[in-house]
Amino acid sequence: MPEFLRLITPEEALQRWLKALPPIEPRVEEIATASALGRVLAQDLSAPEPLPPFPRSTVDGYAVHAADTFGASASLPAYLRLVGEVPMGAAASIHIQPGQAAIVHTGGMIPQGADAVVMIEDTQQMGTAEIEVLKPVAVGQNILAQGEDVQPGQVVLKAGSLLRPQEIGGLMALGLTTIAVVSKPRVGLISTGDEVIPPAEKPRPGQVRDVNSHALAALVQRGGGEPLLYGIIPDDPQSLYEAARRAQGECDLVVITAGSSVSARDMTAQVVERLGKPGVLVHGIAIRPGKPTILAIADELPVLGLPGNPVSALVVGRLFILPILQRLLGLRRPILHPGVSATLSTNLASETGREDYVPVRLVQGDHGWQAEPVFGRSNLIFTLVRADGWIRIPPEATGLGDGEQVWVTLF
Amino acid sequence: MPEFLRLITPEEALQRWLKALPPIEPRVEEIATASALGRVLAQDLSAPEPLPPFPRSTVDGYAVHAADTFGASASLPAYLRLVGEVPMGAAASIHIQPGQAAIVHTGGMIPQGADAVVMIEDTQQMGTAEIEVLKPVAVGQNILAQGEDVQPGQVVLKAGSLLRPQEIGGLMALGLTTIAVVSKPRVGLISTGDEVIPPAEKPRPGQVRDVNSHALAALVQRGGGEPLLYGIIPDDPQSLYEAARRAQGECDLVVITAGSSVSARDMTAQVVERLGKPGVLVHGIAIRPGKPTILAIADELPVLGLPGNPVSALVVGRLFILPILQRLLGLRRPILHPGVSATLSTNLASETGREDYVPVRLVQGDHGWQAEPVFGRSNLIFTLVRADGWIRIPPEATGLGDGEQVWVTLF
Repeated sequence: MPEFLRLITPEEALQRWLKALPPIEPRVEEIATASALGRVLAQDLSAPEPLPPFPRSTVDGYAVHAADTFGASASLPAYLRLVGEVPMGAAASIHIQPGQAAIVHTGGMIPQGADAVVMIEDTQQMGTAEIEVLKPVAVGQNILAQGEDVQPGQVVLKAGSLLRPQEIGGLMALGLTTIAVVSKPRVGLISTGDEVIPPAEKPRPGQVRDVNSHALAALVQRGGGEPLLYGIIPDDPQSLYEAARRAQGECDLVVITAGSSVSARDMTAQVVERLGKPGVLVHGIAIRPGKPTILAIADELPVLGLPGNPVSALVVGRLFILPILQRLLGLRRPILHPGVSATLSTNLASETGREDYVPVRLVQGDHGWQAEPVFGRSNLIFTLVRADGWIRIPPEATGLGDGEQVWVTLF
Repeated sequence: MPEFLRLITPEEALQRWLKALPPIEPRVEEIATASALGRVLAQDLSAPEPLPPFPRSTVDGYAVHAADTFGASASLPAYLRLVGEVPMGAAASIHIQPGQAAIVHTGGMIPQGADAVVMIEDTQQMGTAEIEVLKPVAVGQNILAQGEDVQPGQVVLKAGSLLRPQEIGGLMALGLTTIAVVSKPRVGLISTGDEVIPPAEKPRPGQVRDVNSHALAALVQRGGGEPLLYGIIPDDPQSLYEAARRAQGECDLVVITAGSSVSARDMTAQVVERLGKPGVLVHGIAIRPGKPTILAIADELPVLGLPGNPVSALVVGRLFILPILQRLLGLRRPILHPGVSATLSTNLASETGREDYVPVRLVQGDHGWQAEPVFGRSNLIFTLVRADGWIRIPPEATGLGDGEQVWVTLF
């Protein structure tokens, strides 16, 4: 327990890292709006024109002078002369005079002179030339005014907005078919370890395949970044330094997954220290799994040193890579990750002062979700495959009890 | 109110649609595991080999016979002869005899004969040839057995599994660098309306740009499908029929966004009816926005008719396109969408019998999130741009009260 009390919490560590990060001038690229889902807008966007571009009817009915319908009822209808129909997709060429009405469809343009639309259900057509209005309408009723959604010149999307389906739709409505977005931050991934080989190769005794480069690459993609793989580096300071320097010149964030032995981890810290000032800010975090994490800034570049075992690397990677990607992307609002509330199915112990992340499976119970911890040593990647999410045991807790309500963050 | 009571709820409508859908034989393609994030596995995968592939140490220390350490303590250490070191990434060539120990690093191979590892912290090295063990270890302690994560032949991932970063990592650990995934379901999108023009064009009076094709395409992408755009069709039954037939031959789901007038909507229903049996299953749902929704099956193909206004199209699209995509993908577990709990900032009225979806903004309050409804007519796409999510008012409720706790599903 004293060991963890000497270490800072994940949240403190993250804040120290983000605070030390210099202001970022993101790279910008122009892309087609149609392929911009999930990207981040690089600059404020103003509406070049109003939306709707002309006054539109919200119902099927008759464009009228509202004053002509005042007091109208089923027993005492107002009589209006039918002077035509506004075709869909064309300008309304008719000018409605008092006492007149014109057929207008939902979405159609309101003709000049008219200031309201009577719904067809509230009328009766008398031959081809006259209608009875059975209910009064107020001025503006059943009309979308020009610019009611968006005024010309209005900032419709701020820099740093995440582009969801509705933003894509809104941009298309304004004719903005290409836009400037923030280029995906480049995240350099370096795996280390004399025992690590590429996944396509057959391991000899003592060798294991590289899991971290690929699992972290997927995590980076999911967070809106572009992973760049710098390969597998042997446990040798000079080789690691050279690979890290190369990544430093080409990336916005460098992630090194250390070899798993203490000496390999110390080597990572020493190499990161050589990359530039201020160097290592945090070495060791009060978290399980993932204690030997390194957070550094080297010549304005954030560098993350992750423990070598795949579960720690993914859990800690998620906690630190996603927020820094959000910063590098200039996202205005943090992305909220999916989660559900669930009932814990067993007791879980934890040391005070340490934040624990426990993988859990979700099982549909009689009263909502049950969270069942997936036990397994932190080195086993399939522990995470069997899990739907994790629960966090905060540093101040000594554990969680069977039947307790917990929040499950979904992986 | 009686109007909505005649209509079925969205949930009933969805179940009716899914139940009428014939069993699906998904198309399959072989892809690189490295680019499989977010895809769905097409067949069960068995482990070709055990994980870990050999017994590994979980600590830095000494491989020993556990029996040699029984009763060891700081005051009465066990003395063992140091016979070598297991190098990382190589086979352990040493055979440990009783009374012997070998240096082993975290992740290194356990040499033959040894059945436990003593942590380096619990030892003292005496010169180069001997160590003192200060604490006993049990058989198996600090060792990951061969196959402890995965046994050879074990099904590690079932068909229908969504591939997350940890699955990518697990597959790489097993050397499975290419895998069979379900091909993205093809979703044909047809916009209709005499007034609708492509976004790149400048609207003349009475014309508006096509929002729905592009917002829905983004929604389809997000749900794991491949959108195919069939263009903008005028309000003419034969043209719509021909476009729908073309889409029917090429897609796994066809979505038609109707013109907004009643006659245009009726036309859509008639055209869908002509596409094949059993035809329209649901026409009209007790939901706002989105009442005039059409659910159909035409010759085994699901067809969705959406209201023409962009907000209804997106809200209803989300409710019906995402679940059918999950079915078409053969996903084993439904994807849970992110959401947060929040306090409603105002009263909201709703009609009994109707399910309401109200767009809300999230504002950080003193006690967590506040949900502020974004008021705006359902025709205005920027209503959704200003919203972070929606709240659902269930059919049995007559509204929600100021200060009530609500669940906000994030868009």
